[in-house]
Amino acid sequence: MFVVMRTGAAEAEVNGVKGLILAEGLTPFENPGAEGTVIAVVGEIGKRREQLRGRLEALAGVARVRAISKPYKLVSREFHPENTVIRVLDTAVGDGGLSVMAGPCSVESRDQLLETVDHVAASGATIIRGGAFKPRTSPYSFQGLGVEGLRYLAEARARTGLPVITEVMEPNQVDIVAEYADILQIGTRNMQNFSLLLACGRAGRPVMLKRGFSATIEEWLMAAEYIASAGNSQIILCERGIRTFETTTRNTLDLTAVPLIHHLTHLPVVVDPSHATGKRWLVKPLAIGGAAVGADGIMVEVHPRPDEALSDAEQQLDFAGFDSMMAAITAVHAHVRDLHGDPLPAVGNGQG
Amino acid sequence: MFVVMRTGAAEAEVNGVKGLILAEGLTPFENPGAEGTVIAVVGEIGKRREQLRGRLEALAGVARVRAISKPYKLVSREFHPENTVIRVLDTAVGDGGLSVMAGPCSVESRDQLLETVDHVAASGATIIRGGAFKPRTSPYSFQGLGVEGLRYLAEARARTGLPVITEVMEPNQVDIVAEYADILQIGTRNMQNFSLLLACGRAGRPVMLKRGFSATIEEWLMAAEYIASAGNSQIILCERGIRTFETTTRNTLDLTAVPLIHHLTHLPVVVDPSHATGKRWLVKPLAIGGAAVGADGIMVEVHPRPDEALSDAEQQLDFAGFDSMMAAITAVHAHVRDLHGDPLPAVGNGQG
Amino acid sequence: MFVVMRTGAAEAEVNGVKGLILAEGLTPFENPGAEGTVIAVVGEIGKRREQLRGRLEALAGVARVRAISKPYKLVSREFHPENTVIRVLDTAVGDGGLSVMAGPCSVESRDQLLETVDHVAASGATIIRGGAFKPRTSPYSFQGLGVEGLRYLAEARARTGLPVITEVMEPNQVDIVAEYADILQIGTRNMQNFSLLLACGRAGRPVMLKRGFSATIEEWLMAAEYIASAGNSQIILCERGIRTFETTTRNTLDLTAVPLIHHLTHLPVVVDPSHATGKRWLVKPLAIGGAAVGADGIMVEVHPRPDEALSDAEQQLDFAGFDSMMAAITAVHAHVRDLHGDPLPAVGNGQG
Amino acid sequence: MFVVMRTGAAEAEVNGVKGLILAEGLTPFENPGAEGTVIAVVGEIGKRREQLRGRLEALAGVARVRAISKPYKLVSREFHPENTVIRVLDTAVGDGGLSVMAGPCSVESRDQLLETVDHVAASGATIIRGGAFKPRTSPYSFQGLGVEGLRYLAEARARTGLPVITEVMEPNQVDIVAEYADILQIGTRNMQNFSLLLACGRAGRPVMLKRGFSATIEEWLMAAEYIASAGNSQIILCERGIRTFETTTRNTLDLTAVPLIHHLTHLPVVVDPSHATGKRWLVKPLAIGGAAVGADGIMVEVHPRPDEALSDAEQQLDFAGFDSMMAAITAVHAHVRDLHGDPLPAVGNGQG
Repeated sequence: MFVVMRTGAAEAEVNGVKGLILAEGLTPFENPGAEGTVIAVVGEIGKRREQLRGRLEALAGVARVRAISKPYKLVSREFHPENTVIRVLDTAVGDGGLSVMAGPCSVESRDQLLETVDHVAASGATIIRGGAFKPRTSPYSFQGLGVEGLRYLAEARARTGLPVITEVMEPNQVDIVAEYADILQIGTRNMQNFSLLLACGRAGRPVMLKRGFSATIEEWLMAAEYIASAGNSQIILCERGIRTFETTTRNTLDLTAVPLIHHLTHLPVVVDPSHATGKRWLVKPLAIGGAAVGADGIMVEVHPRPDEALSDAEQQLDFAGFDSMMAAITAVHAHVRDLHGDPLPAVGNGQG
Repeated sequence: MFVVMRTGAAEAEVNGVKGLILAEGLTPFENPGAEGTVIAVVGEIGKRREQLRGRLEALAGVARVRAISKPYKLVSREFHPENTVIRVLDTAVGDGGLSVMAGPCSVESRDQLLETVDHVAASGATIIRGGAFKPRTSPYSFQGLGVEGLRYLAEARARTGLPVITEVMEPNQVDIVAEYADILQIGTRNMQNFSLLLACGRAGRPVMLKRGFSATIEEWLMAAEYIASAGNSQIILCERGIRTFETTTRNTLDLTAVPLIHHLTHLPVVVDPSHATGKRWLVKPLAIGGAAVGADGIMVEVHPRPDEALSDAEQQLDFAGFDSMMAAITAVHAHVRDLHGDPLPAVGNGQG
Repeated sequence: MFVVMRTGAAEAEVNGVKGLILAEGLTPFENPGAEGTVIAVVGEIGKRREQLRGRLEALAGVARVRAISKPYKLVSREFHPENTVIRVLDTAVGDGGLSVMAGPCSVESRDQLLETVDHVAASGATIIRGGAFKPRTSPYSFQGLGVEGLRYLAEARARTGLPVITEVMEPNQVDIVAEYADILQIGTRNMQNFSLLLACGRAGRPVMLKRGFSATIEEWLMAAEYIASAGNSQIILCERGIRTFETTTRNTLDLTAVPLIHHLTHLPVVVDPSHATGKRWLVKPLAIGGAAVGADGIMVEVHPRPDEALSDAEQQLDFAGFDSMMAAITAVHAHVRDLHGDPLPAVGNGQG
Repeated sequence: MFVVMRTGAAEAEVNGVKGLILAEGLTPFENPGAEGTVIAVVGEIGKRREQLRGRLEALAGVARVRAISKPYKLVSREFHPENTVIRVLDTAVGDGGLSVMAGPCSVESRDQLLETVDHVAASGATIIRGGAFKPRTSPYSFQGLGVEGLRYLAEARARTGLPVITEVMEPNQVDIVAEYADILQIGTRNMQNFSLLLACGRAGRPVMLKRGFSATIEEWLMAAEYIASAGNSQIILCERGIRTFETTTRNTLDLTAVPLIHHLTHLPVVVDPSHATGKRWLVKPLAIGGAAVGADGIMVEVHPRPDEALSDAEQQLDFAGFDSMMAAITAVHAHVRDLHGDPLPAVGNGQG
């Protein structure tokens, strides 16, 4: 449930509410929003719901207590009506601009990474991506360079000034990855790896949570709620395609998820057309589609010589392909923005 | 297989090729394309393939004989490299413009239909839609006005000057629907109703073939091939969402299908966000997405008072919603066009 | 809604109820069940529900009026608690025995059909199957022998004394197929071909309705309701696999559907492992599985020389394979029967 | 690739082969099978394939070198033709008998667990299940008793003499769970948690790997390959339903997976009808189905008072339900065994 405080409620009143929640063994989360402070009560409330509601409503400074209609609470727009903006180094995700996360699927060598990031940075990428720990279907495939890869990513950041995002695969890796990277990425196969979600929630770094390739929107938001419940609401969602019966493409990109996510949550959402389609020549049209439906960013894989790549050779863009896509999505984003006024929330919030 | 004629081959030479094909009990289909005449050989070729190929190659005027890599032939771009443009009354689908097919889900009464078409025509719709024969999951739901509905549609056409598209549900209905409508629509549940496909292929009217909600791209194109094999290549494809595990929306709109269709075939493709999402407020963002990925048109349901609709009340736009969507997709289409030069084929044909 | 008559209600009282229903423009369907006559009221009741309920309850002989919790009515167990048994010639489907429908995918020639039916009849098949009109994904594949195939099927019946089931693809074919066949089959792609459902409902022959490969259980039962609403409740359901992401087999056989169908409806259900798996060597283990979960029958494809078959060569059993399967499912069915007492309803009806 | 040794090859010859493989930086896995020793070569072979093959074929004692047709190697039947039998305490999985794994979804208290295990042990269960660490969709749901739950499970084992299986959710938990449990369970959401797979592969305990609810058969076997590649081939597979469009049941139980798994691998496979269906009354018919198609075991959830359960209340059997199911599956398994002779491989290996 949410406790909505009166406008101008005193700090002592807010603390009184929090104290009662804590005394019940539950956890208060406070959103000091533009329309007044809201305190979410999370934990297993069970049968004491009605009695607790009454006691909270009786406290000083409380305007009202509201039930939450969704199973996710901290990530819902009901709790936090304003868009969450994630600021990292000199860039931001979710502020109305279009973030572009680009780089190789895997960091294969220092040279390969630096050649790539120099190019994508010059062409307008805002965040650098690259895999150091790689989840591979086969135990006999290239598993990434590990910590060596992380060091090259840090060098790439120093060189370009851009923040770095990279995947973390298990709780034990969170500390080392957080030491080198600016944003922790949780991959599609780990979306319901609850131990990893909690570990990332405690890591003090923004987290990008990819949608499980067979996860419903609700399961995806419940996974985000795990991260938020551990104290971290700096979460970026990433739509990367879902598994369907169609086999022409690797997965089916669900662009409908973008306005839905904007409607249901306050978190930014990024679209990854590389993994969704698995085909290089489909990346540009679907990056355009993602920008057009209101995504806060696009994530793509870029490689200097895609045919030599150690992973995902079929889907990585070469430099010319990246530049062509950048020109297109930048223009589309600008036009969509003009159309909608404040475009992204307007796309997502309407409820005709 | 395809027989490619030499540039400037004489008509007698073309007829010689056709004659041999007919003598084998097979059917020749000729495409007098910009890059030279191509003749497709369709039918059960079976074991005589190599021998037939040799005999065809030996004929006067034949440049070469090519195998076809796909199971569909007449609808493939290999056979017909130029975009097919469907011209109906004063409008066209597939000519680089953005068609807008709009009208009520069901024709419920003369007044309801005329009120709707007057509005959508004034706001820029290019084709009028409306269901007279309605496929309904339950035998006890409203089944449409039938021929009475067709008559109102013809009146709507006379009044607005716009062509009419409406659904035909069985071979026996093809003649009567073709008498009143300009474009025959085959619904998602009938995509593999082979008798209906053949009947529509012989009807002398353009056909819009909706994708089966569980059909692969290849099955969809094979269904189009049925229509083409009966002599009618005036076919519009319509992506309307596929069935997946996700339940937040009625279906999952597969916008990747748009560039794929442009790549694999010469036929235009339209996007229907109303049926895909089943939610009114999602229609506009996904119509924008459809226009952005290069669709040749958008089909939407519009009702003067959606809450009173006899079918699909949840997804029909009201007039204000339609106008807002029209403004947005018109602008996006213009911008996308500017970006790509000749945007639609460029989106679909690239094969980086 | 259902009108439950008092035990021993007079015929005049039953007629009084029917008369009121008819006078309202609705249709009464009567089930003179063991626990008393029930009359289903079908049609668009709309807003007069409460008022109509009151008027019916006031009539002589009426015990009570019940709402129906499911969208399907005539096929529900609520309306018709007893199992429906379909009797054709000297056999029955749904009487507690295990029906075996066997024969070639397509009737390819008189010799091929008669050689096959002689064998399967001698080995214990109870119904002969064979396709005369074939729905094929490609317009260039073998489309069946048509009426010639029907004639061979009639000869096969005369020779073996077994009833014949064959597919009907469009309303126009219903009369001719019903002239030759004992049971009309509606294929998976036509499950929501509503015109065909209604035509079969009026044909005076039992109908076997295959589940659409992407149909939910509820949609399947709604399709059966179309047939029943046209006056024919002699319906056999057939589970033949659903489309999923798994590609090792053609489809995923949903054996859970068998106890669900027995629970929700009074209609018998048959399992088709040939089409579900698309692999010959999987037919026997899944036929065993079907018998074990309580299916009323098994449908399989058998060919004298499967490798020469004109359709579905990969999945047809040869004669030895058929005999091995027959021995296994006969034994399993007998054991399952012993276990459950009256096995099939016991499997399906339990609601622990 | 596989190196097949000559019958009666000397140990020194086997060591010679292993030595060359190790010298190449690859790993040899030896199967001293009934038909002669086979040595699998695993690791990234890459471009040296042909050259390496020649060098191995030239070694003393080598009969031939075979390519492997599947991406999984150690778990394939090609490498290991004999069935793998997992022996734990006094029971075995995969020896032709029918294992029954039973117990509560979650260990909720010492009393609840002991009451349950006393009953299921007396009724014939062969392995005790119970969750101590619970993966829950919501962070606010009951997360299990943790180590306290493990202690109660150890007490249950001491009391009944039956081995215990319980889930492990992250690499860090492997040691503590392996200290108390006999079999480590990897849950459906963790099937591609590669770090966890490797950690379990090194734990020295048998592992039961549940199929990911959206995993293909091949992905499932690749996940098993991770465990085997870490040195542990004591792996039980568990089919627990896959995610499809059908919503009547929680998931769709894929019983076809059972004969497929027996065909493709040497590992035993267990069926879990509780999680697949999510409905108590469907557990018995589908447990019967699982036994009938040749499963090596059945896993079910049992609770003294299901309606009071803290998790999965809808699907847990009560004691009477468990006993009824036990009687049925025991009888079906005995009959299926009689039918097939040596039933399980016979079901799976046939390739007509």
